[in-house]
Amino acid sequence: MTDQPADDFRPEARSPRGFQDRRARDLRAERRILDAVSKVYERYGFEPLDTPSFEYADALGKFLPDSDRPNEGVFALQDDDEQWMALRYDLTAPLARFAAQNWDGLPKPFRRYAFGTVWRNEKPGPGRYREFLQCDADTVGSDRPEADAEIVALGVEGLEAAGLPAGSAVMKINSRKLLNGLMSQAEITDPVQRLIVLRAVDKLDRLGLKGVGDLLGKGRLDESGDFTKGAGLGGKAIEAVLSFVQAGVGASRAETLNRLDPVVGGSAEGAEGLAELARMDAALKGMGVAEERALFDPAVVRGLEYYTGAVFEAELTLDTVDERGERVRFGSVAGGGRYDDLVARFTGQRVPATGLSFGVSRLVAAQRAIALMEGRQERDARGPVVVIVFDQSAMAEYFAVAAELRAAGIPAEVYLGASGMKAQMKYADRRMSPAAVIIGGDELAAGTATVKDLDLGRELASNLADNREWRESRPGQQTVARADLVETVRRIVQN
Amino acid sequence: MTDQPADDFRPEARSPRGFQDRRARDLRAERRILDAVSKVYERYGFEPLDTPSFEYADALGKFLPDSDRPNEGVFALQDDDEQWMALRYDLTAPLARFAAQNWDGLPKPFRRYAFGTVWRNEKPGPGRYREFLQCDADTVGSDRPEADAEIVALGVEGLEAAGLPAGSAVMKINSRKLLNGLMSQAEITDPVQRLIVLRAVDKLDRLGLKGVGDLLGKGRLDESGDFTKGAGLGGKAIEAVLSFVQAGVGASRAETLNRLDPVVGGSAEGAEGLAELARMDAALKGMGVAEERALFDPAVVRGLEYYTGAVFEAELTLDTVDERGERVRFGSVAGGGRYDDLVARFTGQRVPATGLSFGVSRLVAAQRAIALMEGRQERDARGPVVVIVFDQSAMAEYFAVAAELRAAGIPAEVYLGASGMKAQMKYADRRMSPAAVIIGGDELAAGTATVKDLDLGRELASNLADNREWRESRPGQQTVARADLVETVRRIVQN
Repeated sequence: MTDQPADDFRPEARSPRGFQDRRARDLRAERRILDAVSKVYERYGFEPLDTPSFEYADALGKFLPDSDRPNEGVFALQDDDEQWMALRYDLTAPLARFAAQNWDGLPKPFRRYAFGTVWRNEKPGPGRYREFLQCDADTVGSDRPEADAEIVALGVEGLEAAGLPAGSAVMKINSRKLLNGLMSQAEITDPVQRLIVLRAVDKLDRLGLKGVGDLLGKGRLDESGDFTKGAGLGGKAIEAVLSFVQAGVGASRAETLNRLDPVVGGSAEGAEGLAELARMDAALKGMGVAEERALFDPAVVRGLEYYTGAVFEAELTLDTVDERGERVRFGSVAGGGRYDDLVARFTGQRVPATGLSFGVSRLVAAQRAIALMEGRQERDARGPVVVIVFDQSAMAEYFAVAAELRAAGIPAEVYLGASGMKAQMKYADRRMSPAAVIIGGDELAAGTATVKDLDLGRELASNLADNREWRESRPGQQTVARADLVETVRRIVQN
Repeated sequence: MTDQPADDFRPEARSPRGFQDRRARDLRAERRILDAVSKVYERYGFEPLDTPSFEYADALGKFLPDSDRPNEGVFALQDDDEQWMALRYDLTAPLARFAAQNWDGLPKPFRRYAFGTVWRNEKPGPGRYREFLQCDADTVGSDRPEADAEIVALGVEGLEAAGLPAGSAVMKINSRKLLNGLMSQAEITDPVQRLIVLRAVDKLDRLGLKGVGDLLGKGRLDESGDFTKGAGLGGKAIEAVLSFVQAGVGASRAETLNRLDPVVGGSAEGAEGLAELARMDAALKGMGVAEERALFDPAVVRGLEYYTGAVFEAELTLDTVDERGERVRFGSVAGGGRYDDLVARFTGQRVPATGLSFGVSRLVAAQRAIALMEGRQERDARGPVVVIVFDQSAMAEYFAVAAELRAAGIPAEVYLGASGMKAQMKYADRRMSPAAVIIGGDELAAGTATVKDLDLGRELASNLADNREWRESRPGQQTVARADLVETVRRIVQN
């Protein structure tokens, strides 16, 4: 690097507000998940589809920009021909446009998966970005409950493929129809009251039965002394709601439906919901999806204005801790449901659809937390083995070493800067290299190579007095025959 | 689908001009290539980096929008805080911004790879899209020719990983310094004349030596009778240029340099270029990169205003044909070189860099052409095995079949529409399913399953009278014991 002005104007090097640069550790974890989940999608017969980043604003629908405020919620701009285009804010709106545009030529039902960037023109904040990844699978054109069951099975298998071992996550299933049936059976007809009831049910996890009961009745006084006004239901209605939300506890899917029958079965919509869930149960059984991995939980409430039938939500059941040892709650790591008017805005025809979305960044965090808990070393930040340049005249030999390591599947590189030994070791450390290979004059003469175990060095630095036995069994530096080099490095890398 | 108006306003379902929907066949091929190429990048010690889609317009530099014409070349819009942001038009400008922003904290040299969408706000046309994928690897902060050699080796290995077998592609290497050395030795000093010479050299492939010689001299009359004025060089200069461009023909890398020495070695810049290429050759030898896979070709001319040292270009050496049997030329499938002012616009400091970009969509096309040539069936459009719904009461059994096939790694699904047998078979055909599984009343009673070979059906339809032997050895439909179902389907799928 030489000092040499290149230009008069010097822009500041910074990324736009709310947008982030992402490095190896996060990207590798994310790609591993996307790759594993795609393979599951493909096995389930879902085909990949990529739609453009831009859609015409009228096709996106939700946000119709006008020239005064073109950027309300979405990133929009006007094309040469004066039409407004906007960057997609999810993957569902483009699917709707695609399905409407190509309906006649598509195999029906149409099953597609997609992962891609979506953009939200919102105020950025810590951890709130204006572009992020979504990963969806949807079946368009089937009103069968079995289509919902397949999406659930896909979710269960996808979570396992994404590195959440069996037993660490559960898919909870509910139906909007059951909730509607409950409302009509408990004679809760006022829309505002219904909303308060749903909000109370949604808080079951946090507040417990007593808290929800209070919110269904007169109201609830929290620890800080704040009072939240309740739905004002009578005792019998409260009892119905509480028995409804508990129907899944400790019960098989079929038992849950049996318990719900007296609560919601009397209403036409409730009975329909029960019948649909029974068909889902049969399909799940056919696919061998265990009871404990996909259960009916009437307390699940998800964006009910949007969904029209079954809803699903995957939750971690593990208690996980972060790097500082603090307990972490991930919330939902996947969710979805049935929505029955995908293309109606374009064609006027109702086309039933059901789908699931994975929360990729949450899955990355969960995977990391599980690895930490199980004491597995996380390798996503790891750099290549660095071949140190000790003797400029031996460059060809250094490149031969790198090529041998690469051929053995071990990431490796020759140091390509201009600095000396000390800076090269510092470079290897910054790259989080597992090992460095040193071949100097002595080694060249003797036909040997020296290998430095850098993982060990980092381990020792972080954990000084401990692990003496392990340390003694593992030499920090060893000189081996040149022919044994690759094997020696492999043992360190696999450690 | 029921007819039911949903809304008053019906937007037209269409994607914006110059943007495309992409389906399974292309996406699967593209992902396979990206996946394979990433693994090579990682083995070479390059780490993944993702920068945002948006950069501040001043950081992108090339295009500075003003409020009157915000969309000149890029897609730009103004953020809430009045700053202009634009979607990236390549992956190099964001790398420059990232490197300048984080220089102190980066391991140096910094080696990163990236693949991502880039956007160009240009007039769309047939096959010309306004968003497409780029796939780059760059080493920033090393001026060693060995860094260029590594990029070349990476390219060679990447092309093979991307499905171009050894011998089907070659990486051609040149250096701007050789070309400059040639110009000064041949006393071509006028910039316009230099440009005409470079353009002529660039046409060697198409016009041959005679054509290039004409363009270097008085000019060239083409078949249509059009005359192109030449560079007007004298006989000796023409001879120098022609001997220069042929120096690589049938020669090893070292021999080419020997041949070039009398032509360009007399100029300081030419001698420097020769010395650098000699160091590249030594590193390539160290890495075991064969002569025929990476050669020195002085006739390679690539964006010379941009590159400052070595340039590389990968070309297919195979003659390939498309689906209609017509010969296809792919041009360059990868290219790059050394550019030495990556971050100077931000910091005023010159930082040397070298990199390579893969032409992903050309690689997809090349891979397809090679498969076609080798008579391999292309599988990227293939759908799942479809389990036909014959008897509604047997749905659980159908799902069990799908689950068994999936567990065996075979994509499968139960038909989830509402139609009868004929429509279901048509669905399987539209999905390009390899097989359909039929379990009706007879099969249920007998503990059997019927498997229809749909690949065979398509083969027969396309190739009626032919292949009798093969057809007779391969039953179009067979009924097997339920326990043998997965194995039977596997044989068809693997065929």
